Amino acid sequence: MIGDGALTGGMAFEALNHIGHEQKDLMVILNDNEMSIAPNVGAMHNYLSKIRSDRYYLRAKDEVEMLLKKIPAIGGKLAKTAERVKDSLKYMMVPGVLFEELGLTYLGPVDGHDMHKLIETFKQADNVRGPVFVHVLTTKGKGYKPAEADSYKWHGISPYKIESGQVLKSVGNPMYTDVFAKTLIELGEQDKRLVAVTPAMPSGSGLIPFSERFPDRMIDVGIAEQHAATMCAALAMEGMKPVFAVYSTFMQRAYDQIVHDICRHNANVMFAIDRAGFVGADGETHQGVFDVAFMRHIPNMVMMMPKDENELRHMMKTALEYNDGPIAYRYPRVNGLGVTLDETLIPIPIGKWETVREGEGYAVLAAGPMVQVALEAAEILKREGVQLRVINARFFKPLDHEMLLELANSHTNMIVLEEASEAGSLGSAILEFYAENRIFDTRVSLMGVPDRFIEHGSVKEQREETGLTAEAVCTEMKQFMSNHPYGIGKTGFSS
Amino acid sequence: MIGDGALTGGMAFEALNHIGHEQKDLMVILNDNEMSIAPNVGAMHNYLSKIRSDRYYLRAKDEVEMLLKKIPAIGGKLAKTAERVKDSLKYMMVPGVLFEELGLTYLGPVDGHDMHKLIETFKQADNVRGPVFVHVLTTKGKGYKPAEADSYKWHGISPYKIESGQVLKSVGNPMYTDVFAKTLIELGEQDKRLVAVTPAMPSGSGLIPFSERFPDRMIDVGIAEQHAATMCAALAMEGMKPVFAVYSTFMQRAYDQIVHDICRHNANVMFAIDRAGFVGADGETHQGVFDVAFMRHIPNMVMMMPKDENELRHMMKTALEYNDGPIAYRYPRVNGLGVTLDETLIPIPIGKWETVREGEGYAVLAAGPMVQVALEAAEILKREGVQLRVINARFFKPLDHEMLLELANSHTNMIVLEEASEAGSLGSAILEFYAENRIFDTRVSLMGVPDRFIEHGSVKEQREETGLTAEAVCTEMKQFMSNHPYGIGKTGFSS
Repeated sequence: MIGDGALTGGMAFEALNHIGHEQKDLMVILNDNEMSIAPNVGAMHNYLSKIRSDRYYLRAKDEVEMLLKKIPAIGGKLAKTAERVKDSLKYMMVPGVLFEELGLTYLGPVDGHDMHKLIETFKQADNVRGPVFVHVLTTKGKGYKPAEADSYKWHGISPYKIESGQVLKSVGNPMYTDVFAKTLIELGEQDKRLVAVTPAMPSGSGLIPFSERFPDRMIDVGIAEQHAATMCAALAMEGMKPVFAVYSTFMQRAYDQIVHDICRHNANVMFAIDRAGFVGADGETHQGVFDVAFMRHIPNMVMMMPKDENELRHMMKTALEYNDGPIAYRYPRVNGLGVTLDETLIPIPIGKWETVREGEGYAVLAAGPMVQVALEAAEILKREGVQLRVINARFFKPLDHEMLLELANSHTNMIVLEEASEAGSLGSAILEFYAENRIFDTRVSLMGVPDRFIEHGSVKEQREETGLTAEAVCTEMKQFMSNHPYGIGKTGFSS
Repeated sequence: MIGDGALTGGMAFEALNHIGHEQKDLMVILNDNEMSIAPNVGAMHNYLSKIRSDRYYLRAKDEVEMLLKKIPAIGGKLAKTAERVKDSLKYMMVPGVLFEELGLTYLGPVDGHDMHKLIETFKQADNVRGPVFVHVLTTKGKGYKPAEADSYKWHGISPYKIESGQVLKSVGNPMYTDVFAKTLIELGEQDKRLVAVTPAMPSGSGLIPFSERFPDRMIDVGIAEQHAATMCAALAMEGMKPVFAVYSTFMQRAYDQIVHDICRHNANVMFAIDRAGFVGADGETHQGVFDVAFMRHIPNMVMMMPKDENELRHMMKTALEYNDGPIAYRYPRVNGLGVTLDETLIPIPIGKWETVREGEGYAVLAAGPMVQVALEAAEILKREGVQLRVINARFFKPLDHEMLLELANSHTNMIVLEEASEAGSLGSAILEFYAENRIFDTRVSLMGVPDRFIEHGSVKEQREETGLTAEAVCTEMKQFMSNHPYGIGKTGFSS
């Protein structure tokens, strides 16, 4: 069973190609509601629409048979041609010729809200030998008027009043995505090479305002991340500055294209990786916890994450001005901190971290929203007399070598705090750096996402469950203090 | 320009879907030689074959027009139907209806070895508005008789005599792939749940003998790694023991499916990852150096690599007997060591490494063929009076915690030696283990594949160029010895 949105993903075609070949008794049910989250795009969508809208198919059969009877009986040389004409007419009556050509028997379109017709069609499909493709038409949000009226917005919805469909407004700072959306337009005004590419997420990724301002500079390729990545490489090679706006979890589909088409060619592709880290109500499969680990080891990649929404703006500028290869900025699915947004955007030196709070003996190297968590921990520890240094480790790659050497030389106890897979992400990179430089006497502790799939929940719950909180940082710090080889940091901290 | 093999990859469909939608002036040239490496499979292949073989298309046009004239003039209710019949006949004359339905103008098939016809067709294509799909028929190996006669073998060929096409036999031990092929049949005899899945590489992956012995238990899905991975998950859930036989570089395409469909469901899928590490003459894009880094951080994964071809056999048995989730063994594209192959296969305890040479104070933790390199280094160092311990770190995940603790407790200087991306692979995992357990006084040095794309060359050249040799291990060891904090290992080693 597949939606018409998912059908644009290459994997669906790979499966259809195999199903058509194997000719096993298998039923493919297409739930066609003309939407993924946004209205679908692509040739397949146009094709399905044609079938959907052409009511002619539903009454043509009898008429065609009448017409065929009017052709005089033919023998000899033309007989084969006549036979083929009759075959050919099948295509007219059977709308799903594309699926028929792939070796599946097409049935439909059938009204997916008519239970009687559905059951009848499935029974019919069950009697067909070999694979069957059942084309079912549905209305997204069917049965709930507000959802039918705006299926876009209602794909994923916050709490609402069921009588009116009115969404209960949550008061909060703008999301990172909102700031991305606003900044992208500003940058688009400054640099006409900027073009945005989305795999079917124009709304979710905040690209609608950009596409309204620059209708020719937003490309929606449908659910097709592999193609999106490679097309970005091609755009970059032609001198454009494409930004591949994609959720962390969906970017997983483009790993091979990022390796071969973007990084191997050192193409100037910018990655705007949204929903990096825990995603709360977006659900279990949408956690964005692997991207650092699966992109960091690819040569030529530059990768960063802002401590707040204002820094996101500067990172977007950084990426635009960077012309030495691929560069990625990742940001979380949470509200920003409500900080002031700078008018003038200044590129950040590549690989430069910053100390956001001074301290001594102990430091947290934090990425993204974890910087705020580290600052909270520092406040708590201050009461205990500990001066915790907080570093905004905003580049995952390259690292800030100078600062890392300084930290090692000052015998600082370090905690790496990140909302990313502990295996292979920032902490791992820092350990590698020290090992590669044969600096063996460092004390680096890791706090990242543990080696298991993280369940559905709010971001708050997910951080608590995985120990990515200020309290957990304090506890980890106690471990350091109770077993400190350098003789510093002996404070009144109650262990 | 795309081959008919590559056309089965989902990414090609994603692009076609987008091209058909955009309706830009763009030419897609299909080089259809009916082969990827192996003969192609899949519904698309069958469809192209039908076009290819049906010479009728080339002469039907006149006959159809004659036939149309025989239909009496029709008015009224049937007029629209008659119009559609004429439209429908287009499909009969234009063989590429599938591509036409996707919004591309189909031209062909045209003989790709007829330069005149090719140029004529391209000119014609150039005049068409919107995207054009040119279907070109070619013969693989055209112009060289031995290659035409066996295009399978000649896809990639070792040095040969040009007059006869006779391959200059290289004398060597069986490849790892050969041992995999032989062992898979043995295991197939023992366990009828075993089924092999290949994305269009039945020969390269050594599956031909298995498919001859068990015709129903080898599934070639075409170049479709995403579908292959997900189908393996489905097979596992139905109680089968699928082995996804795939080259390291091609597995990159299935990263998302490995995360979501295999590991998230903890499905009992076995991965036989061939061509892991440097691949020599297979070329630059085929280096298998990322798989450890992109698979190790995925929860539930077990991952190993054998020190020799005999251990590969035991690992295959280990994987077959393991029923707690996904398990992978990776092996290189080189000849085996020529060791004796055990008749009886015994599962290796999950996560257990082995010491293959005793030593003191210094150890190399090596994976796969690097174990042999480490042993060579140990021989060199022995002459200098150093007893280098060599550990076969055969599990990338889980690690051998017990041995790692023992190494830390004995203050051993460690070099991690691996033919995999230094970022994120075995060395990284070992550093993470110590950090997570707050063991900070270890001395671990990393020798892996550096952070750049590795050029084409022989495996020997590639190892020399990246410093993965016995000599380089000795040099690294000197660094340890000249700066040793524990006061052991003071030997006559000349620095």
